[in-house]
Parts: sequence; structure tokens; C-alpha cells
Amino acid sequence: MTKFAEKNKMIDFITFCDYSGTFAFAISGIRLASAKQFDWFGAYVVGVVTAVGGGTIRDILLNATPFWMTQASYLIISGLALLFVLIFRKSVINLNNTFFIFDAIGLGLFGVVGIEKALAFGFPMWVAVIMGTITGAFGGMMRDILINEVPLIFRKDIYALACVFGGIMYYICMQMSLSPALVQLISAVSIFIVRIVAVRYHISLPVLKKEE
Amino acid sequence: MTKFAEKNKMIDFITFCDYSGTFAFAISGIRLASAKQFDWFGAYVVGVVTAVGGGTIRDILLNATPFWMTQASYLIISGLALLFVLIFRKSVINLNNTFFIFDAIGLGLFGVVGIEKALAFGFPMWVAVIMGTITGAFGGMMRDILINEVPLIFRKDIYALACVFGGIMYYICMQMSLSPALVQLISAVSIFIVRIVAVRYHISLPVLKKEE
Amino acid sequence: MTKFAEKNKMIDFITFCDYSGTFAFAISGIRLASAKQFDWFGAYVVGVVTAVGGGTIRDILLNATPFWMTQASYLIISGLALLFVLIFRKSVINLNNTFFIFDAIGLGLFGVVGIEKALAFGFPMWVAVIMGTITGAFGGMMRDILINEVPLIFRKDIYALACVFGGIMYYICMQMSLSPALVQLISAVSIFIVRIVAVRYHISLPVLKKEE
Repeated sequence: MTKFAEKNKMIDFITFCDYSGTFAFAISGIRLASAKQFDWFGAYVVGVVTAVGGGTIRDILLNATPFWMTQASYLIISGLALLFVLIFRKSVINLNNTFFIFDAIGLGLFGVVGIEKALAFGFPMWVAVIMGTITGAFGGMMRDILINEVPLIFRKDIYALACVFGGIMYYICMQMSLSPALVQLISAVSIFIVRIVAVRYHISLPVLKKEE
Repeated sequence: MTKFAEKNKMIDFITFCDYSGTFAFAISGIRLASAKQFDWFGAYVVGVVTAVGGGTIRDILLNATPFWMTQASYLIISGLALLFVLIFRKSVINLNNTFFIFDAIGLGLFGVVGIEKALAFGFPMWVAVIMGTITGAFGGMMRDILINEVPLIFRKDIYALACVFGGIMYYICMQMSLSPALVQLISAVSIFIVRIVAVRYHISLPVLKKEE
Repeated sequence: MTKFAEKNKMIDFITFCDYSGTFAFAISGIRLASAKQFDWFGAYVVGVVTAVGGGTIRDILLNATPFWMTQASYLIISGLALLFVLIFRKSVINLNNTFFIFDAIGLGLFGVVGIEKALAFGFPMWVAVIMGTITGAFGGMMRDILINEVPLIFRKDIYALACVFGGIMYYICMQMSLSPALVQLISAVSIFIVRIVAVRYHISLPVLKKEE
């Protein structure tokens, strides 16, 4: 296999992760919107916001053009997610495990994309870790604000924290002078694993106790 | 009538639509805030956010200076809307139809303004349609978030979708090489008509059914 | 005392106010999050958003790099606030008066910082007054949106309005050609006093009455 073909395969793999994540994020928005009796268009908006909201906040903070404004694919995938929910309404619930895996893949990829973009804009590592976390977790936060619920990511499982962990792994690998592709892979995979392990073994942060 | 006078009349008409829309949007924010027992200042803030929120999000996404920061009139009109609600408290409810018309005028104009601005910033048509929709509909969304309600625009009537329709009309007219003024007019009027017809005949999108 | 030492003392004093305010704002976010059973990380995020949210919206509107992205101290102080709440859980409630004073100090300083930054970016005074108000009050607004409550600042006491008053004082002092340091001091102190007096004497704006 030539170097070129290898690189192309890599890009295909990243694109696959990106689109899977977008699809899973949009599905989660659309499903939660349906529980609140949103109409089709409203559900679509919630799906889009869930999918691209985190990256949009990141891009606004970095003063970059929001990523979805230069490429229509994210809005199209969110549209496909709406179609999917409409058509397979009854079976959707049986696919919970699949969506969960896709969602974790998306989290891993979005986290790394956020880190990379912040570094590319010249910000220090600690800002990059925050941008990775915002990219991965703030779409879900905006979704919960739109459907008028207390954001789930603040109360359940390890979600945003997985991105923080991935950011630290990124930093460690970078210090060890690994190749950029390897740094990205290890960071994304560690986000993915932390997320999967946390949910499977019901690991969560302690809840802050109410004052008496 | 000279060309100059004609152009001036056109500008007067646009300004009238702009201010009517701002006034109606602010009124809707202030009235909903009053139902939640906001104080005067809080109600004013909600009024302002309803009136300028959509355009502000558009300008942030386009990386433009928010429009209301270069011209005080929008904040002044929102102040007049507060005064109006305070003074004519009991009669306000009787003006529902008037406000509805003004709101639809505002929606039409704001939608077209959003489209034009996105195109002027060099974005493609599909981004412009989204920016038009955001300009018209996201002020109301932010209003509902502030008063802690599930956003109405996602559940009732055709609202945001009217802007999408207007955007498509804009595109079609542009392809037909109509004059810019005519393109704008047809687009704004179609948003206005879609909105009016949808409410009058209780046309709305299907609600996304809950999963069992 | 030399001029230089004097200036250093001034900077120390401003830094002290800045950090006290940040700490108090973060504490308020973390405590309200704990009432909603957020986990530690979620509570930290709410604390950070309360502390830096207003300044972040200001910087986005001014098209500046968000201030906390160039200096880690604000996130560290928010972390200390979380530690503080975790360790002194039971005593925190006894410190309400202390936090209230710190919060009012923060409000005064943040208000003036917002005004100055808007003027430094070339905006007119009325925009600066709004930016001061946003800097001081919108962190609390974002906090309440995150914990899914109707924003408190719109319903209780004089809070945002104190910043507006401070902005007017700033303008008056500037017109009287006072030294910049004195203008800042008078403006910050007047925000602080308005806030303290309003709470002590239960002064608040009238509530907007519901329509029948």
C-alpha cells in the first residue's frame, strides 16, 4: 500500500467517526425533543444543535468561522437522523446500544478535533483541553437547555470528564514525541474507553450534597 | 417622482417594517416576562433579547459587529415597548391581532435581512437561508430560554419554517434575475404570508411522537 | 512612597477585587448547582460559567479573545471555590454575609472592567454601559439557565441595574475630567453601594403585573 492510499484510508476513517458521531448526537437531540412533543422542524433544530453546538461554541471562542458553515454535511446528516427516527420509530429504542457506541466514538473524535483546533490557533495546552471538552460535551448541554431540562452531563456518568482525560493523554503523548497521528489516536481512544467503562461499571463522580 | 425620492421612500418603508418588527418582538418578550413576575428591568432585558437576539447570534456566527451595537434605536424601541405595556396594561390584550401582524412583518423583514447579510459576507445560499431563519426565529427561542419555558417556536405553528420558505423563494427569484429590491420584497412577503396563513388556518407541522 | 510602588499597590488592590469577585461568583454557582444534585464536575462548570460567563459574552460581542483564555487564574480560583464548598460544607451557609460582600465587590469591579474594555474597543458610552452590565450580571443569568431556573437577576433586588447606575456615574465623572483611576473607583464604589443599600433596605423594582 502506498503512503498516499494509507493517508486516504486514514481520512476515510476519521470521516466515518465524524459522521457517526454527528449522527448519534443528532439522534439523541431528536429523541429527547420528541419526548417534549416538538414538531418535526423543532426536533431537527434540537438535533442540529446537539450535533454542532459544542463545536460552534468552540469556534466562537477561538474566533473561527463555525465549522458547519463551510460544509453542509453536518446539517444533512442531522436531517438523515430525523428521517431515521421518523421511519424506524419503534425500533429506535432497540438500537440504544448502537447509538451509545456511536455517541462515544463521536465524543472521542470531537474531543480531539477541539484540542487540535485550539492548538492550531496558538492557544496553550490547558485552553486546548477545555476546547476539546466544550466540543464534546456542550452540544448535549445546549440540547438540554433547549428542551428545558437540567443538563444531564452535569449529573450523570463520566461524560465531559472523559474529554478532560483525553486532553491530558494528548499532552502526555505529545511530550513523549509520538507522531501526531498516534497522539490523536491514543487521545480519542482513551476518551472512548473512559466513557464506555464509566457507563458499563456505573462509575460516576460524587454528587455535591445539598446544604442543610 | 425622482429616482432619489423613490429610493428614500423605499428606505422609509424598510425602516418602518424594521421598527414595527422590533417593537412587536420586544412586546412579546415583555408580556411573557410579566407572566413570570419579572421586574421592569428584567422584562426590558427579555424584550431586548427577543428583539435583537436572533440578529445577534447571526452576527456572532458571521463574525460581524452585532447590529444593535452601532445604532441605539433597537434598544430605544424596546424601551418604548416596555412603556407601552406599562401604560396600556389592560388594553394590550385587545391588540393581540395588531401585534401578530407586526410580528409577522418583523419576521419577514428580519428573515430577508439575515439572508442578505450572510450573502454580503460571502457565504453560500444554504448558509444564508439558515442565517435568515436564525435572525427571524432565534430571538423568540432565547426569550423562551430566559423565561424558562420549552421554546414555543419548536412546538407551535409554522414560524421558523416560514423563514426557510422565504429563503427558498429568495433563491428562486435570484435565479430568475429579478432586481434585488424585487427579490427582497417577494421573499419578505412570502414569509409574511406563510406565517399569516399558517396561523389563520391552524396549519402546523406534525408533532414527533414519543417512543413507547 | 514612589509613584511606582503606588501603582503596584493599585494593581494589587484591583487584582484582589477581581479574584474576590471571581471566587464569590463561582461559590454562588457551585452552591446553586449543589441544590440540583450536580456532580462535582458539573458544579465546577456552573461555578466557572457564573464567574466568567458575563465577561465571555462581553468579549464575544466586542470580538475580543475571551479574557479567561489568556490567563488560567480564573479557572483556578473557581477550582478553589469548589474545594472550599466541599471542605467547609456546613460552615458555608454561615458565611453568607461575607460572600454577599465579595459578590458586590466583584459586581463593582466587573462592571467597570466591562465599561473600560468597550471604550478601549472604540464603542460609544451607551454600548460601554451595556457591556458593563453584561459583564456584571450575565454570569448569574447563565448560571440560572444552566440550573434550569428563571434567572434571579430579573426578579430580585437591584443587581443588573446597579451596573447601569455605575455606568452613568462613570460617564458623569469622565465629563468632569477626573483622573481615569478616580473615575474607575467612583464608578465601582457606586455599583457596590447601590447593591449593598438595595439589599439592606429591600429596595427593588416593581414587578410587572400579569395581564388578567
